[in-house]
Amino acid sequence: MRNAPVTYTPIGVIHTPFPEPRGAPIQPVAGQGVRGIIKLDPQYVPALKDLDGFSHIVLLYHLHRAQGYELQVTPFLDTVKRGLFATRAPRRPNPIGLSIVRLERIEGARLYILDVDIVDGTPLLDIKPYVPAFLAASEYRVGWLTGKDNDAAAAHADTRFLPGPPESS
Amino acid sequence: MRNAPVTYTPIGVIHTPFPEPRGAPIQPVAGQGVRGIIKLDPQYVPALKDLDGFSHIVLLYHLHRAQGYELQVTPFLDTVKRGLFATRAPRRPNPIGLSIVRLERIEGARLYILDVDIVDGTPLLDIKPYVPAFLAASEYRVGWLTGKDNDAAAAHADTRFLPGPPESS
Repeated sequence: MRNAPVTYTPIGVIHTPFPEPRGAPIQPVAGQGVRGIIKLDPQYVPALKDLDGFSHIVLLYHLHRAQGYELQVTPFLDTVKRGLFATRAPRRPNPIGLSIVRLERIEGARLYILDVDIVDGTPLLDIKPYVPAFLAASEYRVGWLTGKDNDAAAAHADTRFLPGPPESS
Repeated sequence: MRNAPVTYTPIGVIHTPFPEPRGAPIQPVAGQGVRGIIKLDPQYVPALKDLDGFSHIVLLYHLHRAQGYELQVTPFLDTVKRGLFATRAPRRPNPIGLSIVRLERIEGARLYILDVDIVDGTPLLDIKPYVPAFLAASEYRVGWLTGKDNDAAAAHADTRFLPGPPESS
Protein backbone atom coordinates (compact mmCIF):
# COMPACT_ATOMS: atom_id res chain seq x y z
CA MET A 1 0.00 0.00 0.00
CA ARG A 2 3.02 2.28 0.13
CA ASN A 3 2.50 3.14 -3.52
CA ALA A 4 -1.23 3.63 -3.08
CA PRO A 5 -2.43 6.81 -4.83
CA VAL A 6 -2.78 9.94 -2.72
CA THR A 7 -5.39 12.62 -3.34
CA TYR A 8 -5.02 16.30 -2.53
CA THR A 9 -7.59 19.08 -2.75
CA PRO A 10 -6.23 22.48 -3.84
CA ILE A 11 -6.35 25.18 -1.15
CA GLY A 12 -6.63 28.05 -3.64
CA VAL A 13 -5.72 29.33 -7.09
CA ILE A 14 -2.66 31.29 -8.26
CA HIS A 15 -3.36 34.19 -10.63
CA THR A 16 -0.52 35.55 -12.75
CA PRO A 17 0.05 37.49 -16.00
CA PHE A 18 0.89 34.24 -17.83
CA PRO A 19 -2.19 32.76 -19.49
CA GLU A 20 -0.16 30.01 -21.19
CA PRO A 21 2.98 28.02 -20.29
CA ARG A 22 4.50 29.43 -23.49
CA GLY A 23 6.23 32.68 -22.53
CA ALA A 24 6.19 32.09 -18.78
CA PRO A 25 9.58 32.39 -17.10
CA ILE A 26 11.01 28.98 -16.24
CA GLN A 27 12.23 29.80 -12.74
CA PRO A 28 11.47 32.56 -10.20
CA VAL A 29 14.78 34.27 -10.84
CA ALA A 30 13.52 34.92 -14.38
CA GLY A 31 10.15 36.11 -13.13
CA GLN A 32 11.74 38.75 -10.93
CA GLY A 33 9.34 41.61 -10.33
CA VAL A 34 6.40 39.79 -11.90
CA ARG A 35 3.32 40.04 -9.68
CA GLY A 36 0.73 37.42 -8.89
CA ILE A 37 -2.19 36.98 -6.52
CA ILE A 38 -3.06 33.85 -4.62
CA LYS A 39 -6.77 33.54 -3.93
CA LEU A 40 -6.92 31.20 -0.98
CA ASP A 41 -10.02 29.26 -0.05
CA PRO A 42 -11.39 31.53 2.74
CA GLN A 43 -11.62 28.60 5.17
CA TYR A 44 -7.82 28.68 5.44
CA VAL A 45 -7.40 32.37 6.33
CA PRO A 46 -6.63 31.61 10.03
CA ALA A 47 -3.68 29.49 8.81
CA LEU A 48 -2.08 32.62 7.28
CA LYS A 49 -1.40 34.17 10.69
CA ASP A 50 2.30 35.09 11.12
CA LEU A 51 3.09 34.35 7.47
CA ASP A 52 3.52 38.06 6.73
CA GLY A 53 6.71 38.04 8.81
CA PHE A 54 8.40 36.03 6.07
CA SER A 55 9.85 37.78 3.04
CA HIS A 56 9.66 34.61 0.94
CA ILE A 57 7.32 31.64 0.82
CA VAL A 58 7.44 28.22 -0.78
CA LEU A 59 4.51 27.36 -3.04
CA LEU A 60 3.68 23.79 -4.03
CA TYR A 61 1.14 23.58 -6.83
CA HIS A 62 -0.39 21.26 -9.37
CA LEU A 63 1.07 21.77 -12.84
CA HIS A 64 -2.38 21.51 -14.36
CA ARG A 65 -1.30 22.22 -17.92
CA ALA A 66 1.29 19.44 -17.99
CA GLN A 67 -0.02 16.29 -19.61
CA GLY A 68 1.90 13.04 -19.81
CA TYR A 69 5.66 12.78 -19.52
CA GLU A 70 8.74 11.15 -20.94
CA LEU A 71 11.55 9.70 -18.85
CA GLN A 72 14.21 11.72 -20.64
CA VAL A 73 13.77 15.24 -21.98
CA THR A 74 15.80 18.05 -23.53
CA PRO A 75 15.63 20.88 -20.97
CA PHE A 76 15.18 24.55 -21.86
CA LEU A 77 18.82 25.24 -21.00
CA ASP A 78 20.31 22.33 -22.91
CA THR A 79 20.49 20.60 -26.26
CA VAL A 80 20.72 16.92 -25.23
CA LYS A 81 18.34 14.57 -23.45
CA ARG A 82 18.58 14.42 -19.66
CA GLY A 83 16.91 12.18 -17.13
CA LEU A 84 13.56 13.72 -16.22
CA PHE A 85 14.36 13.79 -12.48
CA ALA A 86 17.57 15.73 -13.24
CA THR A 87 15.36 18.49 -14.71
CA ARG A 88 12.52 20.69 -13.56
CA ALA A 89 10.44 19.94 -16.65
CA PRO A 90 6.75 20.32 -15.76
CA ARG A 91 5.66 17.11 -17.45
CA ARG A 92 6.53 14.51 -14.77
CA PRO A 93 4.91 11.42 -13.21
CA ASN A 94 3.49 13.61 -10.43
CA PRO A 95 3.37 17.15 -11.84
CA ILE A 96 3.97 19.09 -8.62
CA GLY A 97 5.52 22.51 -9.11
CA LEU A 98 7.72 24.25 -6.53
CA SER A 99 8.43 27.98 -6.49
CA ILE A 100 9.95 30.31 -3.94
CA VAL A 101 8.31 33.71 -4.32
CA ARG A 102 8.43 37.04 -2.51
CA LEU A 103 5.48 37.77 -0.28
CA GLU A 104 4.45 41.42 -0.64
CA ARG A 105 1.36 41.49 1.58
CA ILE A 106 -1.69 39.57 2.69
CA GLU A 107 -5.24 40.97 2.57
CA GLY A 108 -7.80 38.56 3.89
CA ALA A 109 -7.67 35.48 1.68
CA ARG A 110 -5.46 37.18 -0.92
CA LEU A 111 -1.69 36.89 -0.95
CA TYR A 112 0.13 39.38 -3.17
CA ILE A 113 3.31 37.78 -4.44
CA LEU A 114 6.31 38.79 -6.54
CA ASP A 115 8.87 36.95 -8.71
CA VAL A 116 6.25 34.65 -10.12
CA ASP A 117 7.00 31.98 -12.74
CA ILE A 118 3.62 30.28 -12.61
CA VAL A 119 0.82 29.94 -15.17
CA ASP A 120 -2.47 31.74 -14.46
CA GLY A 121 -5.12 29.57 -12.84
CA THR A 122 -2.70 27.10 -11.28
CA PRO A 123 -4.21 25.13 -8.37
CA LEU A 124 -2.26 25.72 -5.15
CA LEU A 125 -1.57 22.72 -2.91
CA ASP A 126 0.52 24.09 -0.04
CA ILE A 127 2.26 27.16 1.35
CA LYS A 128 5.36 26.86 3.55
CA PRO A 129 7.60 29.56 5.00
CA TYR A 130 10.96 29.83 3.28
CA VAL A 131 13.77 29.47 5.80
CA PRO A 132 17.27 29.38 4.28
CA ALA A 133 18.88 28.26 7.55
CA PHE A 134 16.92 25.00 7.35
CA LEU A 135 18.99 23.98 4.36
CA ALA A 136 21.91 21.90 5.51
CA ALA A 137 24.00 22.41 2.41
CA SER A 138 26.87 24.81 2.00
CA GLU A 139 28.60 23.56 -1.15
CA TYR A 140 26.84 22.39 -4.26
CA ARG A 141 27.38 20.68 -7.56
CA VAL A 142 24.75 21.27 -10.21
CA GLY A 143 25.63 18.62 -12.81
CA TRP A 144 24.55 19.33 -16.35
CA LEU A 145 23.47 22.82 -15.30
CA THR A 146 27.00 23.86 -14.41
CA GLY A 147 27.64 27.20 -16.11
CA LYS A 148 24.06 27.26 -17.35
CA ASP A 149 22.18 27.92 -14.14
CA ASN A 150 22.71 31.66 -14.40
CA ASP A 151 21.22 31.62 -17.88
CA ALA A 152 17.86 30.85 -16.29
CA ALA A 153 17.33 34.55 -15.61
CA ALA A 154 16.96 35.16 -19.31
CA ALA A 155 15.18 31.95 -20.25
CA HIS A 156 11.47 31.68 -20.88
CA ALA A 157 9.39 28.64 -21.57
CA ASP A 158 8.82 27.55 -25.12
CA THR A 159 6.35 24.93 -26.22
CA ARG A 160 8.30 21.79 -25.53
CA PHE A 161 6.44 20.84 -22.37
CA LEU A 162 2.97 21.49 -23.69
CA PRO A 163 0.80 18.54 -24.66
CA GLY A 164 1.79 17.28 -28.04
CA PRO A 165 3.61 14.59 -29.97
CA PRO A 166 6.75 13.12 -28.35
CA GLU A 167 9.09 14.95 -30.74
CA SER A 168 8.00 18.27 -29.25
CA SER A 169 9.76 17.56 -25.99
CA MET B 1 -12.92 22.77 -11.50
CA ARG B 2 -9.79 24.59 -10.35
CA ASN B 3 -10.19 23.15 -6.89
CA ALA B 4 -10.93 19.67 -8.21
CA PRO B 5 -8.95 17.01 -6.30
CA VAL B 6 -5.69 15.82 -7.83
CA THR B 7 -4.36 12.31 -7.45
CA TYR B 8 -0.72 11.30 -7.48
CA THR B 9 0.86 7.86 -7.47
CA PRO B 10 4.09 7.53 -5.46
CA ILE B 11 7.20 6.82 -7.56
CA GLY B 12 9.02 4.98 -4.77
CA VAL B 13 9.57 4.66 -1.04
CA ILE B 14 12.08 6.44 1.24
CA HIS B 15 13.81 4.22 3.81
CA THR B 16 15.44 5.86 6.83
CA PRO B 17 16.52 5.02 10.41
CA PHE B 18 13.39 6.75 11.81
CA PRO B 19 10.55 4.26 12.28
CA GLU B 20 8.33 6.89 13.93
CA PRO B 21 7.84 10.68 13.57
CA ARG B 22 8.81 10.90 17.25
CA GLY B 23 12.58 11.33 17.38
CA ALA B 24 13.05 12.20 13.73
CA PRO B 25 14.92 15.43 13.09
CA ILE B 26 12.59 18.21 12.04
CA GLN B 27 14.66 19.61 9.20
CA PRO B 28 17.56 18.29 7.07
CA VAL B 29 20.09 20.46 8.88
CA ALA B 30 19.27 18.44 12.01
CA GLY B 31 19.52 15.16 10.12
CA GLN B 32 23.03 15.94 8.96
CA GLY B 33 24.95 12.75 8.26
CA VAL B 34 21.87 10.55 8.64
CA ARG B 35 21.63 8.09 5.77
CA GLY B 36 18.59 6.95 3.85
CA ILE B 37 17.83 4.91 0.75
CA ILE B 38 15.21 5.71 -1.85
CA LYS B 39 13.84 2.62 -3.55
CA LEU B 40 12.47 3.95 -6.80
CA ASP B 41 9.91 2.08 -8.86
CA PRO B 42 12.21 0.45 -11.47
CA GLN B 43 10.14 1.84 -14.35
CA TYR B 44 11.60 5.28 -13.57
CA VAL B 45 15.30 4.35 -13.66
CA PRO B 46 15.87 6.02 -17.08
CA ALA B 47 14.64 9.29 -15.51
CA LEU B 48 17.62 9.22 -13.08
CA LYS B 49 20.17 9.81 -15.87
CA ASP B 50 22.38 12.85 -15.12
CA LEU B 51 21.01 13.21 -11.59
CA ASP B 52 24.31 11.98 -10.11
CA GLY B 53 25.95 15.23 -11.21
CA PHE B 54 23.98 17.06 -8.54
CA SER B 55 25.24 17.13 -4.96
CA HIS B 56 21.77 17.84 -3.58
CA ILE B 57 18.27 16.89 -4.63
CA VAL B 58 14.80 18.09 -3.68
CA LEU B 59 12.40 15.39 -2.48
CA LEU B 60 8.65 15.88 -2.41
CA TYR B 61 6.84 13.19 -0.48
CA HIS B 62 3.54 12.28 1.11
CA LEU B 63 3.58 12.77 4.89
CA HIS B 64 1.74 9.49 5.34
CA ARG B 65 1.80 9.56 9.13
CA ALA B 66 0.17 12.97 9.40
CA GLN B 67 -3.56 12.76 10.03
CA GLY B 68 -5.86 15.75 10.13
CA TYR B 69 -4.70 19.29 10.81
CA GLU B 70 -5.50 22.46 12.68
CA LEU B 71 -5.27 25.93 11.20
CA GLN B 72 -3.01 27.22 14.00
CA VAL B 73 -0.35 25.18 15.76
CA THR B 74 2.45 25.60 18.27
CA PRO B 75 5.62 24.77 16.30
CA PHE B 76 8.54 22.74 17.68
CA LEU B 77 10.63 25.89 17.97
CA ASP B 78 8.03 28.04 19.66
CA THR B 79 5.63 28.31 22.58
CA VAL B 80 2.70 30.18 21.00
CA LYS B 81 0.23 29.29 18.26
CA ARG B 82 1.20 30.25 14.72
CA GLY B 83 -0.73 30.07 11.46
CA LEU B 84 -0.25 26.61 9.97
CA PHE B 85 1.08 27.97 6.65
CA ALA B 86 3.73 29.95 8.59
CA THR B 87 5.06 26.60 9.88
CA ARG B 88 6.35 23.36 8.43
CA ALA B 89 4.14 21.24 10.66
CA PRO B 90 3.45 17.93 8.90
CA ARG B 91 -0.28 17.95 9.63
CA ARG B 92 -1.61 20.24 6.87
CA PRO B 93 -4.51 20.28 4.39
CA ASN B 94 -2.29 18.63 1.78
CA PRO B 95 0.48 16.87 3.73
CA ILE B 96 3.28 17.19 1.19
CA GLY B 97 6.78 17.14 2.66
CA LEU B 98 9.78 18.89 1.12
CA SER B 99 13.39 18.05 1.94
CA ILE B 100 16.69 18.94 0.34
CA VAL B 101 19.09 16.05 0.87
CA ARG B 102 22.61 15.17 -0.21
CA LEU B 103 22.84 12.60 -2.99
CA GLU B 104 25.67 10.16 -2.28
CA ARG B 105 25.27 7.76 -5.17
CA ILE B 106 22.77 5.97 -7.39
CA GLU B 107 22.79 2.21 -7.97
CA GLY B 108 20.08 1.10 -10.35
CA ALA B 109 16.76 2.05 -8.76
CA ARG B 110 18.37 2.88 -5.40
CA LEU B 111 19.40 6.38 -4.42
CA TYR B 112 21.67 6.63 -1.38
CA ILE B 113 21.00 9.91 0.37
CA LEU B 114 22.39 11.84 3.36
CA ASP B 115 21.03 14.49 5.77
CA VAL B 116 17.67 12.78 5.99
CA ASP B 117 14.81 14.05 8.19
CA ILE B 118 12.16 11.70 6.84
CA VAL B 119 10.20 8.87 8.48
CA ASP B 120 10.89 5.32 7.26
CA GLY B 121 8.46 4.08 4.63
CA THR B 122 7.49 7.53 3.35
CA PRO B 123 5.97 7.47 -0.15
CA LEU B 124 8.03 9.56 -2.59
CA LEU B 125 6.17 11.79 -5.06
CA ASP B 126 8.88 13.62 -6.98
CA ILE B 127 12.62 14.23 -7.28
CA LYS B 128 14.01 17.53 -8.58
CA PRO B 129 17.60 18.73 -8.90
CA TYR B 130 18.55 21.34 -6.31
CA VAL B 131 19.88 24.46 -8.02
CA PRO B 132 20.62 27.37 -5.67
CA ALA B 133 21.03 29.85 -8.54
CA PHE B 134 17.37 29.35 -9.44
CA LEU B 135 16.37 31.08 -6.24
CA ALA B 136 15.76 34.74 -6.90
CA ALA B 137 16.13 35.85 -3.32
CA SER B 138 19.19 37.42 -1.74
CA GLU B 139 17.83 38.89 1.48
CA TYR B 140 15.34 37.22 3.75
CA ARG B 141 13.09 37.78 6.70
CA VAL B 142 12.00 34.71 8.61
CA GLY B 143 9.25 36.12 10.81
CA TRP B 144 8.57 34.23 14.03
CA LEU B 145 11.60 32.04 13.35
CA THR B 146 14.02 34.97 13.64
CA GLY B 147 16.78 33.92 16.03
CA LYS B 148 15.25 30.45 16.27
CA ASP B 149 16.04 29.06 12.85
CA ASN B 150 19.51 27.99 13.91
CA ASP B 151 18.02 26.07 16.79
CA ALA B 152 16.59 23.64 14.26
CA ALA B 153 19.92 21.80 14.14
CA ALA B 154 19.34 20.55 17.66
CA ALA B 155 15.58 20.08 17.48
CA HIS B 156 13.89 16.74 17.05
CA ALA B 157 10.24 15.96 16.61
CA ASP B 158 8.13 15.25 19.62
CA THR B 159 4.63 13.88 19.50
CA ARG B 160 2.65 17.02 18.82
CA PHE B 161 2.00 16.28 15.17
CA LEU B 162 1.03 12.66 15.60
CA PRO B 163 -2.64 11.72 15.44
CA GLY B 164 -4.28 12.53 18.71
CA PRO B 165 -6.55 14.90 20.55
CA PRO B 166 -6.38 18.60 19.58
CA GLU B 167 -4.55 19.56 22.76
CA SER B 168 -1.55 17.52 21.65
CA SER B 169 -0.76 19.95 18.86
